[in-house]
Amino acid sequence: MAKTTVACYGAIGSYSWEAMKEYFADTSYEYTMYNRFEETVAAVAGGEKDFGVLPIENSSTGGITDVYDLIMKYNCSVAGEKIIRIEHNLMALPESSLEDIDTVYSHPQGFAQSREFFKKHEGWKEIPYFSTAKSAEKVRNDGKKNEAAVASKKAAEIYNLKILASHIETNPDNYTRFFIISKKPLSYEGKDKITIILTVKHEPGALYHVLGHFFYNDMNMTHLESRPIPGRPFEYFFHIDVMGNLNDPGVKRTLEKLKRQCGYFRILGNYKAEEREVSHETGTHR
Amino acid sequence: MAKTTVACYGAIGSYSWEAMKEYFADTSYEYTMYNRFEETVAAVAGGEKDFGVLPIENSSTGGITDVYDLIMKYNCSVAGEKIIRIEHNLMALPESSLEDIDTVYSHPQGFAQSREFFKKHEGWKEIPYFSTAKSAEKVRNDGKKNEAAVASKKAAEIYNLKILASHIETNPDNYTRFFIISKKPLSYEGKDKITIILTVKHEPGALYHVLGHFFYNDMNMTHLESRPIPGRPFEYFFHIDVMGNLNDPGVKRTLEKLKRQCGYFRILGNYKAEEREVSHETGTHR
Repeated sequence: MAKTTVACYGAIGSYSWEAMKEYFADTSYEYTMYNRFEETVAAVAGGEKDFGVLPIENSSTGGITDVYDLIMKYNCSVAGEKIIRIEHNLMALPESSLEDIDTVYSHPQGFAQSREFFKKHEGWKEIPYFSTAKSAEKVRNDGKKNEAAVASKKAAEIYNLKILASHIETNPDNYTRFFIISKKPLSYEGKDKITIILTVKHEPGALYHVLGHFFYNDMNMTHLESRPIPGRPFEYFFHIDVMGNLNDPGVKRTLEKLKRQCGYFRILGNYKAEEREVSHETGTHR
Repeated sequence: MAKTTVACYGAIGSYSWEAMKEYFADTSYEYTMYNRFEETVAAVAGGEKDFGVLPIENSSTGGITDVYDLIMKYNCSVAGEKIIRIEHNLMALPESSLEDIDTVYSHPQGFAQSREFFKKHEGWKEIPYFSTAKSAEKVRNDGKKNEAAVASKKAAEIYNLKILASHIETNPDNYTRFFIISKKPLSYEGKDKITIILTVKHEPGALYHVLGHFFYNDMNMTHLESRPIPGRPFEYFFHIDVMGNLNDPGVKRTLEKLKRQCGYFRILGNYKAEEREVSHETGTHR
C-alpha cells in the first residue's frame, strides 16, 4: 500500500511540524515542507498529497485569516485538528551568552508574543524572518555569536542551539490550533466536531436564526469567525465549528433545514475534536 | 477656543489620511501622523490628541485585528466611522515608463490586493514597505527610474509621481472602513450606530441568546468580529456593531438586560453610520 503523504507548512522544527508529528504519530507517512500557506493547500487540492497541516487559530492573536480564505478558495475539507502549546525560547550558538546578543531573528508573531521580554532588551535589533524554525536555522548557518532566534525547544535541538532564556512568551497560555486538511471529506465514524462555511440572508436576525438551529438541536458552537465575501463589501462568510456527528439523523436534519436558509452552505468536514485540556486562568478578564 | 487635534495613522497621502480629510472636512483641526497603530491609539488614550483615525476593516482582507485589540487595551471610545474606496495605482518618476520598472515598493496589503496585476509582471522585485504612501515617498526620494510604488492617486499627486497603471486592484469593490476614536464617548444626539464589546457565558446557546436581544428589539446587527481573550485559550471577545441610538429608552433597556447576561460588557460609542453607498455586484458568491 502506498504510504500516506503529508504537505506541512513551515520548516522542520516549526510548530506546524510538531503538530504533524503528534497528529500522525501512529501513522506511517512521508512529509514535504512548504514555505507558503497557498503551496501547502494547493498540494492537497491538486491531489499531490493526501493531507495538509496548517495553523488556523492562535489563542493570543486570533484566527489565521489567510488559511481560512485558502481552504475556502481551494475547496478543501477538514480531516482533523491538533492543538499545540506555543512556548518561545531565545536561542543562540552554544558558545554564546546573553551578553553577546545584539541581533534577534524570528517570525513577527514570535516577537509579538514575547513583547514583555523584549522590552527588557531594547538595544537589540529585532529582524522579522520567515518563521521561528527558519530563524533558528539561520542563526546556526550564520555561525555568529551575536545572533539569536526566538523559536521552540524542538528547533533548538534540531539546529543545535543553546537556550539562553526559556518561556519568554508574554502569555503562558499560548496555544495554536492546526487544521489537518484533505481533498475530500473523510468517514464520519466516531467523529464529533463539524466545520461549516455559510452566508446568511441580508435581513435582520439572519445570523440569530442560524445559531438557533444549533442551540435547539444541542449542537454546541465552539467557534465563529467572519470573513469578507470578495466583491460584496461588508458582507461575510461565517466559518462555524459545532459539535456533532454527521451520521446522527438529528444532526443531518438540522443541517438540511439550515442549508435552505443560507445563501452559501458547505460542510468542510466532520472530525475528532482535540482532547487536549488547555489550562484556564480564572479571574477577571482584562 | 483650542483647535481640535487629530492623531492619524500612516503617512500624508495614505488612505487613513484621506479618511481623516473627509471626516473632518467641516472642522478646523490640526493633525499629527503616527507610524504605528499603538502610538496613534496611545496619543488619544493619553489625552494628547482629541481624536484618532485608524483602519478597522477592509472589505477584501477583513478585520484589522491589531486595531480591535488596541482600542480594547486602551479603553478608547468610537466617535465615528468613515469608508474609503481603495484604488491602487502603479506610480513612478515622471520620466519613467513601464519598461523601466524592475523594483516595486508597497505595503504587503497593496501587493496582496493587486495580485492579478503582478502576475503579469513576474520579473519585478516586490519589496514590502511600511505603507503605500511611504512607498510613494521613497520612490520620490530615491529618484531612480527603475523604481515604482503601489499607492493611491492622492499619493501620486503629493509625491509628484506619474501613474503608469491605474486601478490595478484585483477586486474593484475594495473599501476600507476607518474608526474615528476618542478618549470618552461623545453625545448620542442624532447617532444611529453602536459598537459594543462583550463576552458570553461559557454555556451552549450563549451567543444565540445575545443576538436574540438585538433581533427582538429591532437593533440590526451589521458586524460581528470575534477576538481571543488573553489568558483564556479559545474563548472570545465579541466586537458587535448594531443600529440604534442610546437615548432611545428601548435601546437602553435592551442593553441593560443584555449586560446582565454577559461576563464583560462595554459600549464603545454611539456614532453616525457612514452613508456612503458601496457598490454591490449581484450574482453568485464565489
